[in-house]
Amino acid sequence: MVMPVRGYAAHSATSALGLFSFVRRDPRPNDVAIEIEFAGVCHSDLHTVRGDWGVPRYPVVPGHEIIGRVTAVGADVTRFTVGQRVGVGCMVDSCQHCPACAQGLEQYCENGMTGTYNDVDRQDGTSTQGGYSERIVVSEQFVVNVPEHLDPAGAAPLLCAGITTWSPLRHWKVGPGSKVAVVGLGGLGHMALKLAKAMGAEVTLFSRSPGKEADAQRLGASHVVISTDPAQMKAVRGQFDLIIDTVPYVHELNPYVSTLAVSGTLVLVGYLGPLEEMLNTAPMVMGRKSVAGSVIGGIAETQEMLDFCGQHGITADIERIDIGSINDAYERMLKSDVKYRFVIDIASFQGAA
Amino acid sequence: MVMPVRGYAAHSATSALGLFSFVRRDPRPNDVAIEIEFAGVCHSDLHTVRGDWGVPRYPVVPGHEIIGRVTAVGADVTRFTVGQRVGVGCMVDSCQHCPACAQGLEQYCENGMTGTYNDVDRQDGTSTQGGYSERIVVSEQFVVNVPEHLDPAGAAPLLCAGITTWSPLRHWKVGPGSKVAVVGLGGLGHMALKLAKAMGAEVTLFSRSPGKEADAQRLGASHVVISTDPAQMKAVRGQFDLIIDTVPYVHELNPYVSTLAVSGTLVLVGYLGPLEEMLNTAPMVMGRKSVAGSVIGGIAETQEMLDFCGQHGITADIERIDIGSINDAYERMLKSDVKYRFVIDIASFQGAA
Repeated sequence: MVMPVRGYAAHSATSALGLFSFVRRDPRPNDVAIEIEFAGVCHSDLHTVRGDWGVPRYPVVPGHEIIGRVTAVGADVTRFTVGQRVGVGCMVDSCQHCPACAQGLEQYCENGMTGTYNDVDRQDGTSTQGGYSERIVVSEQFVVNVPEHLDPAGAAPLLCAGITTWSPLRHWKVGPGSKVAVVGLGGLGHMALKLAKAMGAEVTLFSRSPGKEADAQRLGASHVVISTDPAQMKAVRGQFDLIIDTVPYVHELNPYVSTLAVSGTLVLVGYLGPLEEMLNTAPMVMGRKSVAGSVIGGIAETQEMLDFCGQHGITADIERIDIGSINDAYERMLKSDVKYRFVIDIASFQGAA
Repeated sequence: MVMPVRGYAAHSATSALGLFSFVRRDPRPNDVAIEIEFAGVCHSDLHTVRGDWGVPRYPVVPGHEIIGRVTAVGADVTRFTVGQRVGVGCMVDSCQHCPACAQGLEQYCENGMTGTYNDVDRQDGTSTQGGYSERIVVSEQFVVNVPEHLDPAGAAPLLCAGITTWSPLRHWKVGPGSKVAVVGLGGLGHMALKLAKAMGAEVTLFSRSPGKEADAQRLGASHVVISTDPAQMKAVRGQFDLIIDTVPYVHELNPYVSTLAVSGTLVLVGYLGPLEEMLNTAPMVMGRKSVAGSVIGGIAETQEMLDFCGQHGITADIERIDIGSINDAYERMLKSDVKYRFVIDIASFQGAA
């Protein structure tokens, strides 16, 4: 019994997303079938459908910040039951046997994790399709429990923006006493502020322009440093144990490296590509500083993050939209005109044309 | 009672080093007076005296790999007694109260550590002068004990080449099961091989040219990878937990980053300056890899390293020279014609002209 599903898909790099009918597979023994309630809108969705990262497998139904309820489970599923609120993030499979998978770091699977959309199912070779759709079927290994008391719309971005900032905060052992700085106040940045603050750190926001103080403070920052002001940058030299750099385009790192404390790390979570402004190793050597990267997080740590958010009542700051507004939302996202994440109310498919 | 001392000094960037008479201070209450037996010859010595790093405070007596015996101690000295074999490395003082010093990381002193030579004494403003000399007077906080059964000439390079590689091996928690690679087989590289092996790691040497297999193996490497051979580089993709990169000039890091395992770190200990070949962040983000730097080590970890070397019978492979040969040694060092460190026998000052 295949499940017909309505989604919103891109058919080319230049066409708008529109209604698209497709099928989800029958649940396999270890699959969980999910009725989607909300799907967050990530910059990756836009980059993928517009071909910024290479030609995708059109048609593409984007969406990897998925919240919904279990409607059916396969015979071998043990961790989920019908009616449970669950989440699916950026991955729906991985090889499950390489050293990275064995460590619970499926995002770094040496044989390549399977993306939630624009990828190929490992078992049947079909295209994976994402969360801008009514339903999804996912192996239980890649489904996480979502605390029932969290607002499900606000919880959706935790599946990508949340875990992408949580994972480095945990890996580099942020806790009470830590000094953390966040570069950039967008979807990732605002989650980094909330999570770092809740973990007990003293948090600073680096911003290129003034005017974000009130928001930054509300989100957890104790300080805002205008990164274009040399005096302000000088005042925080040698301060930070960890800098979460969420900027998604090429930018110079050296001014931020100088604000790292001895043994500190700047971790890139937004920019993939060559550092056109040459990184200067001298302050790194003379202060045992690191420049690192990190992408999303493993499934176990995604669950850990959701449990933490449940305990601390943390969700994303979102703007809820109907699926029919997705193309407008993309245009606004390109202008950073969103505080701080669009989330699609999937119930709006009911009236979608 | 000032102590007249013979040393070898550079008086300009272009003149040869020659005999130089100067004075050492009277021991202060917390000072240790040392009769120097051996002084290792580090590339930094050459770079400093030739003005490669800016105009030094001529005359400069280089040398920061110092081994000798205590001849006198100040009234407040508690850890050293006359006759004891001791070492002095790259630092002779630091502020002792900043967060780095408080952590035993005097090398990263926020107020600047005091170099063993070409620096200014914090108390009396005189120039510090190094180990190419008969005697030295150093605060006991910056003197370390040298296990009596180690060959003192071979132990001298532990004070810089040894600790420079030991510190990152320890900081990044190398031990049994770790896979470590070392880039470059010189003074630093050969110590990195010995120490990593003794710590229980599986060790690989990256070399630009063949012919080093026998030496590398003897020093502790299980494998040698020719870094100019793409097939060999490809065969070790994703392998190493830690790469100690000892190359002292600008070089491309991307090929080495690709050989790091997930969560691995490449640590630069030799090159300070801009990375002219752009570092590509994509593999760093997609594998949680770090590029870091590290310089020498703190005093407590220097002692820890010497104790470890004592337990494992580790010293440097050296070529012993008389002080009169130092200028020839510099020329040979520029051609990497030394296995793997020159060490000056300070007794040779007896006949020096």
